[in-house]
Amino acid sequence: MTSVTPAQELLDVAYEEALHGLAEGGIPIGAALFDADGTLLGRGRNRRVQSGDPSVHAETDAFRAAGRRRDYRRTTMVTTLSPCWYCSGLIRQFGIGSLIVGESQTFSGGHDWLADHGVAVTVLQDRRCVDLMTQFIAEHPALWYEDIGVADELEA
Amino acid sequence: MTSVTPAQELLDVAYEEALHGLAEGGIPIGAALFDADGTLLGRGRNRRVQSGDPSVHAETDAFRAAGRRRDYRRTTMVTTLSPCWYCSGLIRQFGIGSLIVGESQTFSGGHDWLADHGVAVTVLQDRRCVDLMTQFIAEHPALWYEDIGVADELEA
Repeated sequence: MTSVTPAQELLDVAYEEALHGLAEGGIPIGAALFDADGTLLGRGRNRRVQSGDPSVHAETDAFRAAGRRRDYRRTTMVTTLSPCWYCSGLIRQFGIGSLIVGESQTFSGGHDWLADHGVAVTVLQDRRCVDLMTQFIAEHPALWYEDIGVADELEA
Repeated sequence: MTSVTPAQELLDVAYEEALHGLAEGGIPIGAALFDADGTLLGRGRNRRVQSGDPSVHAETDAFRAAGRRRDYRRTTMVTTLSPCWYCSGLIRQFGIGSLIVGESQTFSGGHDWLADHGVAVTVLQDRRCVDLMTQFIAEHPALWYEDIGVADELEA
């Protein structure tokens, strides 16, 4: 039997969301918010394309799905890709205690900044996540750069 | 006649949104995104209470209302209150060029961090905005601390 760490099991939920987004024609990034005991509080995916909404990054979507809460200190945000500044800011502002990142090879956002501010950060460098984003960026560069606000690349 | 600076005229739109939110029973923070020529691209308000959605801060709502865009460098985000880390991260990630802050006396978020990263930041310390939040925080402390993820204060 293959040994599966808890972090990888949590990542599986985010990865399923990413695949769901891809199947919808969207940007394949997924996320999920869990309580300390592993209870799923909310899951979501990037829906820039599907909803025409630039504010719905995967982490935002999972955070929204979890509803209003008073204390995030014992929660864990799991995301297939290193969180951008927008999503890193979300994690810091609401005091989410832990962050599990699928990969930071295709894009590196604010996960080191979060670690510097007390968030327990784990980066898995999961091969499935790397492959998913590598292929997506190669096939849809303009959409990808739009999603992370990189206007220079769109002019090239 | 009273002399009105352009920044104050832009702030008026955000302040109207804040009052709208207050009238709905919500947290009175408003925001608006403008193009370089002063064209309004989107306006919005905090809707944690109204929509039961913790991800809708005023800046997020204005950003969403502006729809998908490829380049934010010549846009200005105007907000009645210093942006929290979540909203500061939004401004940084999407390369919004300018930020006008109504006030930073009742809450100070990431506006200095944004200035350090190249955003042109103006803080007006507008008396209406200060009074609005001062009164709201005094009357609804638990709701306010929930909105900025300060769990410690809720335990007191």
